[in-house]
Amino acid sequence: MYYTDGKLQYPVRVENPDPRFARYLQQAIGGVEGEIRVSMQYFFQGWATSDPKHRDMLLSTATEEIAHIEMLSTAVALNLEGAPTSLQDEAVKEDPAMAAILGGMSAKQYLSSGLHAMPVDSDGVPFDMSHIYASGNIAADMYANATAESTGRVLATRLYNMTDDPGMKDMLSFLIARDTMHQQQWLAVIEELGGYEGVLPIPNSFPQDEENQEFNYVYVDTRIGEDIQPLDGRFTSGASLDGRGEFSHEFAVPEGDVPQVPPPAPDTFPQESQLEGADGDPAATPST
Amino acid sequence: MYYTDGKLQYPVRVENPDPRFARYLQQAIGGVEGEIRVSMQYFFQGWATSDPKHRDMLLSTATEEIAHIEMLSTAVALNLEGAPTSLQDEAVKEDPAMAAILGGMSAKQYLSSGLHAMPVDSDGVPFDMSHIYASGNIAADMYANATAESTGRVLATRLYNMTDDPGMKDMLSFLIARDTMHQQQWLAVIEELGGYEGVLPIPNSFPQDEENQEFNYVYVDTRIGEDIQPLDGRFTSGASLDGRGEFSHEFAVPEGDVPQVPPPAPDTFPQESQLEGADGDPAATPST
Amino acid sequence: MYYTDGKLQYPVRVENPDPRFARYLQQAIGGVEGEIRVSMQYFFQGWATSDPKHRDMLLSTATEEIAHIEMLSTAVALNLEGAPTSLQDEAVKEDPAMAAILGGMSAKQYLSSGLHAMPVDSDGVPFDMSHIYASGNIAADMYANATAESTGRVLATRLYNMTDDPGMKDMLSFLIARDTMHQQQWLAVIEELGGYEGVLPIPNSFPQDEENQEFNYVYVDTRIGEDIQPLDGRFTSGASLDGRGEFSHEFAVPEGDVPQVPPPAPDTFPQESQLEGADGDPAATPST
Amino acid sequence: MYYTDGKLQYPVRVENPDPRFARYLQQAIGGVEGEIRVSMQYFFQGWATSDPKHRDMLLSTATEEIAHIEMLSTAVALNLEGAPTSLQDEAVKEDPAMAAILGGMSAKQYLSSGLHAMPVDSDGVPFDMSHIYASGNIAADMYANATAESTGRVLATRLYNMTDDPGMKDMLSFLIARDTMHQQQWLAVIEELGGYEGVLPIPNSFPQDEENQEFNYVYVDTRIGEDIQPLDGRFTSGASLDGRGEFSHEFAVPEGDVPQVPPPAPDTFPQESQLEGADGDPAATPST
Amino acid sequence: MYYTDGKLQYPVRVENPDPRFARYLQQAIGGVEGEIRVSMQYFFQGWATSDPKHRDMLLSTATEEIAHIEMLSTAVALNLEGAPTSLQDEAVKEDPAMAAILGGMSAKQYLSSGLHAMPVDSDGVPFDMSHIYASGNIAADMYANATAESTGRVLATRLYNMTDDPGMKDMLSFLIARDTMHQQQWLAVIEELGGYEGVLPIPNSFPQDEENQEFNYVYVDTRIGEDIQPLDGRFTSGASLDGRGEFSHEFAVPEGDVPQVPPPAPDTFPQESQLEGADGDPAATPST
Amino acid sequence: MYYTDGKLQYPVRVENPDPRFARYLQQAIGGVEGEIRVSMQYFFQGWATSDPKHRDMLLSTATEEIAHIEMLSTAVALNLEGAPTSLQDEAVKEDPAMAAILGGMSAKQYLSSGLHAMPVDSDGVPFDMSHIYASGNIAADMYANATAESTGRVLATRLYNMTDDPGMKDMLSFLIARDTMHQQQWLAVIEELGGYEGVLPIPNSFPQDEENQEFNYVYVDTRIGEDIQPLDGRFTSGASLDGRGEFSHEFAVPEGDVPQVPPPAPDTFPQESQLEGADGDPAATPST
Repeated sequence: MYYTDGKLQYPVRVENPDPRFARYLQQAIGGVEGEIRVSMQYFFQGWATSDPKHRDMLLSTATEEIAHIEMLSTAVALNLEGAPTSLQDEAVKEDPAMAAILGGMSAKQYLSSGLHAMPVDSDGVPFDMSHIYASGNIAADMYANATAESTGRVLATRLYNMTDDPGMKDMLSFLIARDTMHQQQWLAVIEELGGYEGVLPIPNSFPQDEENQEFNYVYVDTRIGEDIQPLDGRFTSGASLDGRGEFSHEFAVPEGDVPQVPPPAPDTFPQESQLEGADGDPAATPST
Repeated sequence: MYYTDGKLQYPVRVENPDPRFARYLQQAIGGVEGEIRVSMQYFFQGWATSDPKHRDMLLSTATEEIAHIEMLSTAVALNLEGAPTSLQDEAVKEDPAMAAILGGMSAKQYLSSGLHAMPVDSDGVPFDMSHIYASGNIAADMYANATAESTGRVLATRLYNMTDDPGMKDMLSFLIARDTMHQQQWLAVIEELGGYEGVLPIPNSFPQDEENQEFNYVYVDTRIGEDIQPLDGRFTSGASLDGRGEFSHEFAVPEGDVPQVPPPAPDTFPQESQLEGADGDPAATPST
Repeated sequence: MYYTDGKLQYPVRVENPDPRFARYLQQAIGGVEGEIRVSMQYFFQGWATSDPKHRDMLLSTATEEIAHIEMLSTAVALNLEGAPTSLQDEAVKEDPAMAAILGGMSAKQYLSSGLHAMPVDSDGVPFDMSHIYASGNIAADMYANATAESTGRVLATRLYNMTDDPGMKDMLSFLIARDTMHQQQWLAVIEELGGYEGVLPIPNSFPQDEENQEFNYVYVDTRIGEDIQPLDGRFTSGASLDGRGEFSHEFAVPEGDVPQVPPPAPDTFPQESQLEGADGDPAATPST
Repeated sequence: MYYTDGKLQYPVRVENPDPRFARYLQQAIGGVEGEIRVSMQYFFQGWATSDPKHRDMLLSTATEEIAHIEMLSTAVALNLEGAPTSLQDEAVKEDPAMAAILGGMSAKQYLSSGLHAMPVDSDGVPFDMSHIYASGNIAADMYANATAESTGRVLATRLYNMTDDPGMKDMLSFLIARDTMHQQQWLAVIEELGGYEGVLPIPNSFPQDEENQEFNYVYVDTRIGEDIQPLDGRFTSGASLDGRGEFSHEFAVPEGDVPQVPPPAPDTFPQESQLEGADGDPAATPST
Repeated sequence: MYYTDGKLQYPVRVENPDPRFARYLQQAIGGVEGEIRVSMQYFFQGWATSDPKHRDMLLSTATEEIAHIEMLSTAVALNLEGAPTSLQDEAVKEDPAMAAILGGMSAKQYLSSGLHAMPVDSDGVPFDMSHIYASGNIAADMYANATAESTGRVLATRLYNMTDDPGMKDMLSFLIARDTMHQQQWLAVIEELGGYEGVLPIPNSFPQDEENQEFNYVYVDTRIGEDIQPLDGRFTSGASLDGRGEFSHEFAVPEGDVPQVPPPAPDTFPQESQLEGADGDPAATPST
Repeated sequence: MYYTDGKLQYPVRVENPDPRFARYLQQAIGGVEGEIRVSMQYFFQGWATSDPKHRDMLLSTATEEIAHIEMLSTAVALNLEGAPTSLQDEAVKEDPAMAAILGGMSAKQYLSSGLHAMPVDSDGVPFDMSHIYASGNIAADMYANATAESTGRVLATRLYNMTDDPGMKDMLSFLIARDTMHQQQWLAVIEELGGYEGVLPIPNSFPQDEENQEFNYVYVDTRIGEDIQPLDGRFTSGASLDGRGEFSHEFAVPEGDVPQVPPPAPDTFPQESQLEGADGDPAATPST
């Protein structure tokens, strides 16, 4: 069961409302790097987890993330206070700077929500739940979560850069700190599970001898050209990160041939020429 | 510039076509864990990269991934060979097993593409390019890529489990191996960049002293209840993974108060009762 | 701030797991009539509300709805316990009923989430946040909420009809009851605001004398035909529901003329024939 | 069968074209509150209706709504007449106000449609037909329709506020009036069906004694805190709106326990540590 | 203005309802090849057209297409008559054929719409209005329309193949005939505009001497390999279709060099290693 | 197998970066008329093709199109060089022209990708793979491709019009030329297949005598009104384009009657009034 005390996790204040910043903040609410995504991702991972410790960890943080959406939604409303809503305002008509502000605002934040936050990104694109990754494999999920917090913190620092409102900088400073911790948190689980050697390859419960043994530790280089040199990196020679193989490098060579897909089936109603095939149909003459 | 020799990276053959498996394979083509996603993700990351080595690495692998989509598309077509396409086939009407096969097929693989692959997932949902993560921050991108290859390999092992067709198992064995390597490849870049201490917190070019210093290494626990014990894990005590802080644990306490969002603006046309506010409107009487 | 005690709002048990029912339950999680929708809708409405009572009411119920998603996600996992995951299981190959069950399962519930719930509907279509209606007008929002709970309860009764598992019927009996209450709850706010006369037309803060006075209480009937009779209903005669007008009926007559949209602008690069227009271009000769 | 006379339902004229207003008008065409939505919603409801009167009412109004999309599309084209289409226009380069206008225009209205309307919202997001609610239950559908017309009229009044072009104000005055009528129309059907007592709970054909009798008229309050007082409203005490129950208030208490979701199935390929479970795996030690 | 007489354009009857066919028919309603698409496409093209003849032609056919959606929606409802709606029906439990039928039904056609049609495709994916092509260029639009009618007729023939219900075959025979005509209709406009020589290249109002003159009639062949022969077709030699050029063939050669995208900007917060660039950062050492 | 030499197909340079143009260019990357669309469309068509010549032609051009996405992505990055990223830049605060530029930029190009290209359109809407048309019928596909290249070239000419940067004009001049060729290329295949007489009606493998013979060459005119004259065009009289019929014109007359959709099924839980039907329920009284 879930509960609320109605209070903000951290204070939100805006000294100089800027309706353009209200639009940019939307990315942190409904963008693919935003807080709806992490909240829902941790919830669905948690609800799928039978292990009590991991379940608690996931649901506890998922619940915290709701408070982050709330903070950002509050910030949007505060930045929209007093925003221009008419092309005919004297200010808008006479002051190009005001016209630019109106042009930079989100149209939907006025038209659809009456100067409040929406579950959309900074371009007004609604968040789509296909971004909730919950694979049932804890290592894959932890990397998905570390990724979400990494792109999330990158986004938050960019928002921090866009404003110099002291209230907004303070709020973002808090959210950036939480992203720092959450990156750590999910990667710490990887460590608890044994680090690279413990978790790779993901999933490690698949019998690795059933995967192709020639191509599992080789960097396949598809580059061509007279002066191409093999790529040289941590992943082209030496022991693999999981300690189970040796990296190598190879320029791509096709192992297969030109694929023979079936000719069109009559009951799919292709053109007649497709049914006639090579016999008599010039289109079917091989070109090579 | 890009080129093709028309051949498959690895042979694709199907001994016993199964139109249901043709549907499941779609998840590896157009699912969020699929090959379109990784191909496009690496292309967009590569095209945004000025560093030659990383650019080469990304574009080279992106190009390889096109060959994987091609393999899977070929496999779909081969599995659909001879599939039933009529509710009135004698086989379908008289044999419940055939009826079940028809029911388990993708409708669109017949109706829209004439028994071929489509850029959709196993439920026919089209792939949507918002899943292409290319943040401009290489560490965030590498974790995004490791995640994609982790969920991709989990998916491939599940597909491997669903079939016992020798051709399909061989093809998947190859794709699983490539996912093993690609997980390694992107995490090896993290190692090249210094591992946890070198890359965390992401982005590490943001001056860390501008983030809130009280909340950047503390696990905030939102659980309540009489018998709740603090969570205890790698992330609740000891040095942080990046070596820049000390983990701690804390039960959630609101730092803020009930937020004071602005009252409805008249030019947003709320109800009159909303404009009247607390004066005389019983709805506006605080309930706490 | 938000909190959790880790417990279910109401017990969830499944006596006879049915993976097909696991798919149908998805509609109540990620369908447009589902629980993610109501939870997020009430949150966004609440976060936009300055009035304390309405804010509390919305956020309190939004928080309850998270517990409903949790219940349904638990039910999905329990229904998927022991589900077939291979086309090659002996049971699937030999028993058409098992084959039908496999065909009726969600592919993604295995391939993407490892036999757990996802934020998608019963066809695997991800929930899309454009369905979160939060207009800033409380009457519009209350009708949106009553609608959500009405379609939600219709859905829940259909799910109740599909199963005879005692655990599932018990859980759905609870969710149906909550929908009953929530329909009442939002419509009760309409009553508090004065009912039809108090809230209509929505928004009632727009000066009604600025709307066209000829067409605001007339039913416009676009039906044609020799034997067409005027529609006759509560909305075609008598006092309007808001007491501000008198209903009438009228067969549709165009008030305007054929619209004169501008000819194609040269800088939009239409065909040359479009630029030539009526002069010499036979295509431009009016046909009437 | 459907027919057209080629004329506008109501005149559309624009005295001072404003390409920014052309963008805002898109919300009324392809926004979730827009005219495509209501037209298609009423069509699909009507085509699903066997009752002649309700069918006629729905299809007649659906047909009218096509004329509204036509009016708005005409208005968009007229507002885009003469719009700047080059970053290099002298006017744009030298006049910041013109630059602001260009910045505030829809990019796609030029790039994709050549200065005409599109079936997208004011942010260029295409309309998505999942917003067409047609449940098969007439009361649910009538509330959905009243909601659509309420958010539609809120939107139209905001658009009216944004402009002072006499032609646009006249057109919007007409559309606002039609929304007034359509709100009445759908709610009048609720009245014909007996009002709250006649239609609630929706669906009223489900045997109400099969819903949980303890939770169907109680407001569940999830708020916590030392000074929390029970919410007090029309929905917390007194007879329910449908006359079938008595409202009450209750603070949330979990009826269930920590859910026992099944442990990961081996054939879903979780991590090995997940398969080992509590035996020896520290991750599986309960934390509470 | 638009009108309806309430009657079907062509009779719709179903002798043997099949709920699986009800699902397949959805592709012709809400699929990308379906009737919503053509109706809306012709409407938006028509509303953007100032030429009276083309406007009349487009709006007249758009209006006809509404009648086609109506026919298909009626057919869906008739095919769903008596469909099983419970996993516990005796018929479903005991008869694998019935179980297969239930598995092959659309879940949403019961759960969301109560056994009626929806604006979704055969996999339940909602139609999305980005498929409405209305470019403002009549030749581009006519090819878009001919394409829509071509994929539409392919789809209709496949549906015809799937059933042997006499009523459904009769209805589809009519829709297939209309698609035949509509293909002709839009291509006839191309003929009226002068055929290939009259319309190509589209748009023909762009001054063709401003396009690159070396690459506008050459087939660029990106194939590589020892035994590759140049492709040989109507498009590799001889006069171009528009009579303005001569076709030729060329194997792809890069005209450009490795692109020099800008190094990461500090205010985008890349990793520090990205800011250091080639100086001292091994990652920045060119690999070629 | 696919390969890359790392070089641009054609040089890309920007003399005067304009972040607004960076946004507009997105339409050519991720818009429905853009290069991702054509690349993926030709790949999926090619992978479904068994005829060697057509397969080679499709895959060869698909591969070329990747190079076009690369060119455009490079152009986006170059146009974003030095773009303002803060509302607080002195330039932005003091210069309305700079403020307008910031307002006209894509928010996501900074917030999500760090001043690089994304697979989205000019409004930030992600590309969605449902736009990949690959029907299995070559004539339908060729028209789909000609359409894509037509709308693509219209788009490219509009982008050409928006800028006067010499580098951008040169790049677009190349892309416009390629679109010219690709329009020819796909229409040349239609010619190879026999032109209108050879390919129409599509699909021509469906036995045409099974389509309704009364409605396959008649223009159905749904216009009504006292002064309506029959449309007169190439498609209303004379031989049909395929030489198999004679065009005619007819004003629309319903062939069917009011459809009799089934009454609501009790197990769909409509309202009780819907179940009662005409007996005693005034709502069920026919209105005509």
